[in-house]
Amino acid sequence: MWMTGLPSGGKSTLAEMLEAELIARGRRVERLDGDEVRMHLSKGLGFSRDDRDENVRRVGWVARVLARHGVIAIAALISPYRSTRDELRSRTRDFVEVWVKASLDECVRRDVKGLYKKALAGDLPHFTGVSDPYEPPLQAEVVVETDRQTPAQSVATILAVLEARGYVSDAGISHVKGRSDG
Amino acid sequence: MWMTGLPSGGKSTLAEMLEAELIARGRRVERLDGDEVRMHLSKGLGFSRDDRDENVRRVGWVARVLARHGVIAIAALISPYRSTRDELRSRTRDFVEVWVKASLDECVRRDVKGLYKKALAGDLPHFTGVSDPYEPPLQAEVVVETDRQTPAQSVATILAVLEARGYVSDAGISHVKGRSDG
Repeated sequence: MWMTGLPSGGKSTLAEMLEAELIARGRRVERLDGDEVRMHLSKGLGFSRDDRDENVRRVGWVARVLARHGVIAIAALISPYRSTRDELRSRTRDFVEVWVKASLDECVRRDVKGLYKKALAGDLPHFTGVSDPYEPPLQAEVVVETDRQTPAQSVATILAVLEARGYVSDAGISHVKGRSDG
Repeated sequence: MWMTGLPSGGKSTLAEMLEAELIARGRRVERLDGDEVRMHLSKGLGFSRDDRDENVRRVGWVARVLARHGVIAIAALISPYRSTRDELRSRTRDFVEVWVKASLDECVRRDVKGLYKKALAGDLPHFTGVSDPYEPPLQAEVVVETDRQTPAQSVATILAVLEARGYVSDAGISHVKGRSDG
C-alpha cells in the first residue's frame, strides 16, 4: 500500500491506524514511514528529484520483498512524482496507491513539523507543496480527503477498497465504521 | 544469518544452498546478496570504509525487518569490518554470524568474477583481500572452511548450528549429510 500526498496531509496518521486495523485482522504488517526509512536506507540522499526518486525506489524494493513473504507493507511517503509512483506500480504486484488528499491550506494550517512555516518564509528549499512540486495521482486505487473526513472515515474507505479487491476479509470493518460514526 | 568473508570465498554459493534447504523445511527465507542489494539499496555508495559500513547497516536493517515477520534473512556480504558486524549483532535478535573462510590463495585461484586478477595487477583500489582490509570474526557463531570442505559439508555445518540453537528443526539434515558424504 503506497500512501502519497503533501506533508501534513495525514499519511502517517492513517498508516498507523491502518496498521492497527490490519494487525487486528491477523495480518502481518510493516509500516515504512518516510522519515524513519530515510534514516535507515537513504542517509546522504537529499530532496532533489533524483534523490527523492531513488529513496522511493528503495522503499518500493523493501515493500516488494516484504510482500513476497505475505507481509502487507504500508509505505507513507510524500513521493511527489507521478511517473516514479507509476514505475513502482508497474513493478509491484497488488500495488495499491492511496492518495492522502488535503488542500494545501489545510496542510499549512496543520503544519505538524513546523516546516511549512519555514518554507513559506523562504527558508526551506525543496519543500513539497511550497518550494517543490507535488504531482497528484490521476488514477489512484483509493483517494481519501482528510480535510473532509475524520481519520476513521478515511481508514474505513481504504479498508473497503482492500476488501473489495480481496486483500483483506471484511471482519472488523463495522468496528471502524462504528468509530467513525460515533 | 550474516555470511561474511573474502570475495570468491563461497558466500553466495552457500547462501543459495542454505536458502533451498530452509525452504525445503517450510521456512520463509530471503537472500540478501551483496551485489543485488547494492543495486537496490546503495546506488551511489562506493567502497570506502564509510560507504561499506553504511551498506552493511542498510542490509542489516532490512534483515531485521524481515526477521520481525518470521522470515529468515540470509545476508551474503563481504562486510569486512569487525566492529560493524559486531554493531549489527548487538542490534539484532538471533544474529548468526557465519564466517565463510577460505585462504586468500584459494580465493585468488577461484576468482569468480576476475576481480582478484585486476586488483593484483594494481587496477582495482579498495578490493577486499588485496587493496582493502578484511577483518576476520573473532567469535563467529559458525565458521566454515570452504577450502577444506565441500559446499554440502559447509551447509550441513551451518544447519547443525541453527538446529542446536533451536532456529530450525533437524528434519532433513541427514539429507544434506548424505549428499556431502556421497
